[in-house]
Amino acid sequence: MYSVTVRDHVMIAHSFTGEVFGPAQRLHGATFVVDVEFRRRALDADGIVVDIGRAAETLKAVLAPLNFRNLDDEPAFKGHNTTTEFLARVVFDGMAGAIRRGDLGAGAQAIESLRVTLHESHIASAGFEGPLAE
Amino acid sequence: MYSVTVRDHVMIAHSFTGEVFGPAQRLHGATFVVDVEFRRRALDADGIVVDIGRAAETLKAVLAPLNFRNLDDEPAFKGHNTTTEFLARVVFDGMAGAIRRGDLGAGAQAIESLRVTLHESHIASAGFEGPLAE
Amino acid sequence: MYSVTVRDHVMIAHSFTGEVFGPAQRLHGATFVVDVEFRRRALDADGIVVDIGRAAETLKAVLAPLNFRNLDDEPAFKGHNTTTEFLARVVFDGMAGAIRRGDLGAGAQAIESLRVTLHESHIASAGFEGPLAE
Amino acid sequence: MYSVTVRDHVMIAHSFTGEVFGPAQRLHGATFVVDVEFRRRALDADGIVVDIGRAAETLKAVLAPLNFRNLDDEPAFKGHNTTTEFLARVVFDGMAGAIRRGDLGAGAQAIESLRVTLHESHIASAGFEGPLAE
Amino acid sequence: MYSVTVRDHVMIAHSFTGEVFGPAQRLHGATFVVDVEFRRRALDADGIVVDIGRAAETLKAVLAPLNFRNLDDEPAFKGHNTTTEFLARVVFDGMAGAIRRGDLGAGAQAIESLRVTLHESHIASAGFEGPLAE
Amino acid sequence: MYSVTVRDHVMIAHSFTGEVFGPAQRLHGATFVVDVEFRRRALDADGIVVDIGRAAETLKAVLAPLNFRNLDDEPAFKGHNTTTEFLARVVFDGMAGAIRRGDLGAGAQAIESLRVTLHESHIASAGFEGPLAE
Repeated sequence: MYSVTVRDHVMIAHSFTGEVFGPAQRLHGATFVVDVEFRRRALDADGIVVDIGRAAETLKAVLAPLNFRNLDDEPAFKGHNTTTEFLARVVFDGMAGAIRRGDLGAGAQAIESLRVTLHESHIASAGFEGPLAE
Repeated sequence: MYSVTVRDHVMIAHSFTGEVFGPAQRLHGATFVVDVEFRRRALDADGIVVDIGRAAETLKAVLAPLNFRNLDDEPAFKGHNTTTEFLARVVFDGMAGAIRRGDLGAGAQAIESLRVTLHESHIASAGFEGPLAE
Repeated sequence: MYSVTVRDHVMIAHSFTGEVFGPAQRLHGATFVVDVEFRRRALDADGIVVDIGRAAETLKAVLAPLNFRNLDDEPAFKGHNTTTEFLARVVFDGMAGAIRRGDLGAGAQAIESLRVTLHESHIASAGFEGPLAE
Repeated sequence: MYSVTVRDHVMIAHSFTGEVFGPAQRLHGATFVVDVEFRRRALDADGIVVDIGRAAETLKAVLAPLNFRNLDDEPAFKGHNTTTEFLARVVFDGMAGAIRRGDLGAGAQAIESLRVTLHESHIASAGFEGPLAE
Repeated sequence: MYSVTVRDHVMIAHSFTGEVFGPAQRLHGATFVVDVEFRRRALDADGIVVDIGRAAETLKAVLAPLNFRNLDDEPAFKGHNTTTEFLARVVFDGMAGAIRRGDLGAGAQAIESLRVTLHESHIASAGFEGPLAE
Repeated sequence: MYSVTVRDHVMIAHSFTGEVFGPAQRLHGATFVVDVEFRRRALDADGIVVDIGRAAETLKAVLAPLNFRNLDDEPAFKGHNTTTEFLARVVFDGMAGAIRRGDLGAGAQAIESLRVTLHESHIASAGFEGPLAE
């Protein structure tokens, strides 16, 4: 299995609901350094997994609605704790949708799975991975 | 599959038995920077894989019997080379036992697998991963 | 010149005032991974720059009033943009005050200067460094 | 599953053919920081996945024909774009061949799979992973 | 002294002249991950060392003439070995010139010194630092 | 001021004397990832700060007497706590001596100062820096 990984980041504010979160129930924030790994069985005719330039642009576009935002104010996340693992899934769904819509080119349809990792500090990260097929 | 990873470290002394180890047959030591990845299919009602505070405390508790020790003197390791890969399994077993005992809360019973990685330098690491079910 | 550096982190929300900040004028947040370097000319009788355990505890105590907070609500920062470089100075002043008060022990009075670095992402950081003498 | 990972690097020149590569169609170069992960179900009698010294030497030997070269001039790569993901496969094949030839010792025949990762910058990497059996 | 550091990278080909370079006399290449640290005594009215967005854009502009190039073909470097330390100076001069021309804004004239670091692998880097005044 | 930095590592056992060290009074160990920065005002005729190959070999030679050792048994360290900062000075003195003896070549006599950093974990490091002149 071949893979390519690209990295970007977002800076967000949010708060959590639930005693388990302790002081993180207060409004605070995070930098998430985001890695997206694209996986496929065979390279395309150019010898690549994905056009890395388009992959990076698409990741930036997927992250844009989160960046420099207070996620508590985003209607899409109402009723959800925007934990690191929850946001990993949001990024996964955004990237998967972009691939299906063809934003990464026709060749990218051969991508079989994605692994998204959000690093929230030097000692903690979270991720979501899965196949692209519905 | 969702995941959360936490990091801590230990500083130990030990020596190895066997010609394959060369100068590492002498008493020496290592810092192991330890990553534990928790994996599960679905998030719990709070939107998390695991209570990250309890995960970090549990990791510290699992590492405590190793930390600032000469592992050659530990009865539990008698007859074993405490290689990085061997210790990755020790940490895995310690974390798995803690999850089964409920140290990470009732919700953590849904954790399906763990991946433990010990970084011994900037150029070498070792790990053990597997399912939690017996 | 000898040095010792310890690392911790904080997760905060804030917003900035001024056109130069573009989208960062909105309420957002950041993880700051914080390094504090202690410098002195000679080691103490134990062969150390500073008691690393007390240094880490003191850093945690200095960061606590910031952690899991919306800095826009903190009276101490009223009228200031809590930029990464501004916060590096806040941490510097907090650590310098702790050293002068003796929180790091009598031996720590020999520390001559500090360098504080806040990493806000994989591509940006800011710092403040200077002597400890008034 | 146990694993051990070793790291080395190469510095190469190359160019790519195909519009998708944009400015990378010009002759340029890269440092690839290379991680090879060895995986097996059980440790050997010494308590290891692989002799880490031989693993590191073998990786250096596999990388040697690439290092300080213009890959455009290498007959073996004629007609191929030597992309990061393509080179990950080259390193995988080189390591797999070395294991089969016994370069890592008889015990290394129990290695089941490899994961090769080439880091080309702080924001991009590529890899190839798979089983060792033909 | 306050500081802000931004990071970017370039991918180049080159060769060196001189026996000291051994195999690096052949055409090869490198990824340079480039850090530029801006230093000044006091923050500006906005509470910053430099507009970080403009700093990043300026760094990209300074690196552009190097990126995806064979430096052996660049007239500006004729008769020079484009070593990592030599290129650190090239980036320093480019950034210093941009600051003097006002590319980073009027406030950036207060920047007193720069430190440029080029990371060429996980085990080697080079840099150039100095004051901005002529 | 130009600089070049090279990295290597050692794995040692030791114990400390003094209540300030708490559990580190027991025999334990550490991996030290060692960076040595060489600084000089002008590049030599080849355009370098130092022959990076010889610098790496010299660092390996300086570290060899420490590597895979119990430092408590080394006569040279009798009566000293081999703390990270103390060892940074040991490496500094070793490198400075090698430069003065000419191990890095005649050109290396122009090196003005060194900065040695030992990373003992992901959250702590220590260093020693100073001029080379007696």
